[in-house]
Amino acid sequence: MNPPNIDPPLSQLLASIKPIDAQSLNKARERTAQLVMPPRALGRLHDIAERLCGIGGGATPDIGAKAILVFAGDHGVVVEGVSAYPQNVTAAMVRTFLNGGAGINVIARQVGAEVWVVDMGIAKALDATSLANADRLQMHAIARGTRNFMSEPAMTRDQAEKAILTGFQVASERIVQGCQLLGTGDMGIGNTTPSAAIGMCIGEARADEMVGPGTGLDTAGLARKKSAITRALALHRPDANDGLDVLAKVGGFEIGGIAGCILAAAFHKKPVVVDGFISTAGALIAQALCRDCVDYMFAGHLSQEPGHGIMLRHLGLEPILQLGMRLGEGTGAALSMSILDAAVRVHKEVMTFAEADVPGG
Amino acid sequence: MNPPNIDPPLSQLLASIKPIDAQSLNKARERTAQLVMPPRALGRLHDIAERLCGIGGGATPDIGAKAILVFAGDHGVVVEGVSAYPQNVTAAMVRTFLNGGAGINVIARQVGAEVWVVDMGIAKALDATSLANADRLQMHAIARGTRNFMSEPAMTRDQAEKAILTGFQVASERIVQGCQLLGTGDMGIGNTTPSAAIGMCIGEARADEMVGPGTGLDTAGLARKKSAITRALALHRPDANDGLDVLAKVGGFEIGGIAGCILAAAFHKKPVVVDGFISTAGALIAQALCRDCVDYMFAGHLSQEPGHGIMLRHLGLEPILQLGMRLGEGTGAALSMSILDAAVRVHKEVMTFAEADVPGG
Repeated sequence: MNPPNIDPPLSQLLASIKPIDAQSLNKARERTAQLVMPPRALGRLHDIAERLCGIGGGATPDIGAKAILVFAGDHGVVVEGVSAYPQNVTAAMVRTFLNGGAGINVIARQVGAEVWVVDMGIAKALDATSLANADRLQMHAIARGTRNFMSEPAMTRDQAEKAILTGFQVASERIVQGCQLLGTGDMGIGNTTPSAAIGMCIGEARADEMVGPGTGLDTAGLARKKSAITRALALHRPDANDGLDVLAKVGGFEIGGIAGCILAAAFHKKPVVVDGFISTAGALIAQALCRDCVDYMFAGHLSQEPGHGIMLRHLGLEPILQLGMRLGEGTGAALSMSILDAAVRVHKEVMTFAEADVPGG
Repeated sequence: MNPPNIDPPLSQLLASIKPIDAQSLNKARERTAQLVMPPRALGRLHDIAERLCGIGGGATPDIGAKAILVFAGDHGVVVEGVSAYPQNVTAAMVRTFLNGGAGINVIARQVGAEVWVVDMGIAKALDATSLANADRLQMHAIARGTRNFMSEPAMTRDQAEKAILTGFQVASERIVQGCQLLGTGDMGIGNTTPSAAIGMCIGEARADEMVGPGTGLDTAGLARKKSAITRALALHRPDANDGLDVLAKVGGFEIGGIAGCILAAAFHKKPVVVDGFISTAGALIAQALCRDCVDYMFAGHLSQEPGHGIMLRHLGLEPILQLGMRLGEGTGAALSMSILDAAVRVHKEVMTFAEADVPGG
């Protein structure tokens, strides 16, 4: 077997992604029907285990090493007053991720996942010598923050492609190192604004449906944010069928990284758990580039951010958890991995009616 | 400190149950507000951790040893054709629980919980010498199955009280042995029928809302089941304000055991995770006996059985998981324990804004 290709050009990468294996999926469904319980009585646990079989192409689902990739970036649009927090919180939270003290660190420890952080374009470069666990930070800044998309595209088309390929390469590297299950995460003050813009464009939604308070905007701030996004979409008219165009005009570097991470999972036939609102904006970009990659996605949770449900419906994904979370960082993706673990064990370890010698099978 | 009382009379037991500690709850909320994230950004994880603090009465929530108590019993009403499976499946599944091959065993292993099985009244006594892990089966049959409540009360009032006290004692014994978190489970062919009857009576619901297909009734079977329950309630007119009366007239021995288990948790100030439709019928009995015990309950999941949501609303509980499960056995309670574990870790291990030196706290 040749070593996996982790550096293909984007067009070749997209053309290589195929739907999941129908035969493995069907075989997995046959096993579910034999488990010593009423038909499909564990509901979505069966669906999850079966799709994992289809993704892996094997007879049994398997989850080995897990990793959460947290893509971080800053946003020029914050000068419009669309966030409740100052921009320097992006870098401060990246330091906290490396210190192990953020929400994602704690939940990742709980589910046995590693946390990797990728600087896709934080406004001010971090000094690696001052950081704890600096080996878990990967420096791939496309630029020091995006442009303010109220007046110009957030990035060039080349930068958008580079962001996606960077996410692809970082995630591919984890897979080559043995990771079997990826989760996406984000950090970027202001990034519900580009995410909502992507959701409105690709998800065909109105500002009232898609734009929410993010980390905690007040009513005036929310009105500003809705107005800003609506005007930016009218200014740039991104093409919803062209993921690179949408990402370049109203996206963010970390959102491009997330899209690339998802494409890497599909390319290497590994499952990827998509986190909340920002990650799902990345998933919409990935879907616009390559419809089949959705087969490899699990939606970790339904965010409290109001537009998230519309994004997920556009992807055709049901969230695994619904716990009113709205933190990002990959926390919803990581937490749902405990459900994926349980789904795998049920599929492998529950006896059949015959094995248990129970009537009614 | 005196050893916990595990054998009080029912009236004394009920009078001893108090609401959770408001001061600990408020202190926990103060800590949540300092965690390095937007206010309450992990949603229900915060609610769970805070309530665990209120239950335990301490400064930090703690979950140590976990146990699922699966209460098993048979039902005279099965002669009316209200179940898709034969009655001998109850005993066969109990053997499977002891063999470690059922859904509950697998999910309990995943979350690190022990499984204990209680024979509250299986139709035919199990031969303990033929069983694997017989020490995990506790023999407390009140009678060999309930009576058919279509023609007479399911059990006497004395039997109802004995079922509740048995559940109380079995659960108290686990707590005395060090268990910090209980989960309820059930096994009993036909037991969605008494559960729906309890749900209609205490939950003030119509048959159309509360009666569902259980393990897989067809349309004719479902109509039979609705009709049977409606007629039984008209015949016995159980008093919704008298939990013993409802349990005796239309309940089941395992449902009484579950109610007693829940009361034990509240009595000993420990959290208890209530599983699905049958367990929640037990919770309604417990609530009818003692309103304050609801403070100690977590609803593990929302069952696929249609009436479950109405039961939970009557209790004022939000389910933690919504995964289309409908197996019982305690599977939904056990699976949700992974979310409780995560909630506790978040509360204890996420840094404060000050500790992380992040602006905006």
